[in-house]
Amino acid sequence: MGMENRKYPSSALQNAVEAISALPGIGRRGALRLALHLLKQPQENVSFLAEAISRLADDVHYCKRCMMLCDSDLCEICSDNARDHRQICVVESVRDVMSIEDTGQYHGVYHVLGGIISPINGIAPSDLNIPGLLSRLSEAESRGEETEVILALSGDVEGETTSFYLYRQIAPFKVRVTTLARGLGFGDDLEYADSLTLGRSILSRQPFNP
Amino acid sequence: MGMENRKYPSSALQNAVEAISALPGIGRRGALRLALHLLKQPQENVSFLAEAISRLADDVHYCKRCMMLCDSDLCEICSDNARDHRQICVVESVRDVMSIEDTGQYHGVYHVLGGIISPINGIAPSDLNIPGLLSRLSEAESRGEETEVILALSGDVEGETTSFYLYRQIAPFKVRVTTLARGLGFGDDLEYADSLTLGRSILSRQPFNP
Repeated sequence: MGMENRKYPSSALQNAVEAISALPGIGRRGALRLALHLLKQPQENVSFLAEAISRLADDVHYCKRCMMLCDSDLCEICSDNARDHRQICVVESVRDVMSIEDTGQYHGVYHVLGGIISPINGIAPSDLNIPGLLSRLSEAESRGEETEVILALSGDVEGETTSFYLYRQIAPFKVRVTTLARGLGFGDDLEYADSLTLGRSILSRQPFNP
Repeated sequence: MGMENRKYPSSALQNAVEAISALPGIGRRGALRLALHLLKQPQENVSFLAEAISRLADDVHYCKRCMMLCDSDLCEICSDNARDHRQICVVESVRDVMSIEDTGQYHGVYHVLGGIISPINGIAPSDLNIPGLLSRLSEAESRGEETEVILALSGDVEGETTSFYLYRQIAPFKVRVTTLARGLGFGDDLEYADSLTLGRSILSRQPFNP
């Protein structure tokens, strides 16, 4: 019998299963298992989960400079004077920043695009945080700083497309554009790369030659 | 770098990852993925999820007769006069009731133990809803009804132990004790059995001979 039309013995259970199974990678059977697990937990654990979820959107801030998640206006990396602010590593997502930070090999700053150009998923350049990057470069230029932009996007078609698009947008500025060394296999996601490979890739980054 | 000691860029994100990764089968990487997914969702979806989780424990009721989840005092099955109330199918959990209902082959009622005797997991007979079963049998006997108790527990050691324990508790009553036909492989969990096999098992249930 299909799980879709399943009759649940309780409407509260049904609500919970529907809400949980809307999460990516969790089917209705897994959602039922999680809901029944929650029913067996102490109320304070369940409240902690519900509150952590509901406060997520309210309590998370985005860095006004790089769009990284943070607790205030400016993220820890952007407000760290020990980092090299003339190196801007452009990534798709918050997770990519965390992956690169995990390598311990990079001491510059970041710029989070918030996505990647993807016609199939309906994501256009205008959906990405590109104007923020251009104004950072413009400010750096007006301060007479030499900036390096590291395009650290995934090695698939969408990543390459986005890199190429960014390269053309950045071209008017006097910046050095580099990209990750592909020690990673072609098509690998940054997120699943091991720290060693990813760390080596960012150390041996190369001039971007489209 | 280990995921355990990971530094999160936002304390709200860290809270959410910790709460979500406490769920069974979800590691910290999966929890991070889910939390970042939630950050991209419309606020009403996230609120729906948080509310469904926090209201779960408050809004779910347990049937006062069989301990099945329900919306009121008595579950739909126990309050259904078309079901045969002289057949009581004893199961470990709510999920097992749902699995047997899915087969469409059983028209009696249930009794949910709320667990299974498991010394390893510290679950003793006193943790199970056994007194409720005995008082149901006692009431049935005082009404002069002939009752059949179907022991529908999993075919592993803990299930067999629990069946044997129940059999001895039930022995003083004038009831017919049966158990599921093991068309299922030995050691199979009820939950993952296909409907056809499980349906046949309950139709060809057999006298319990310990």
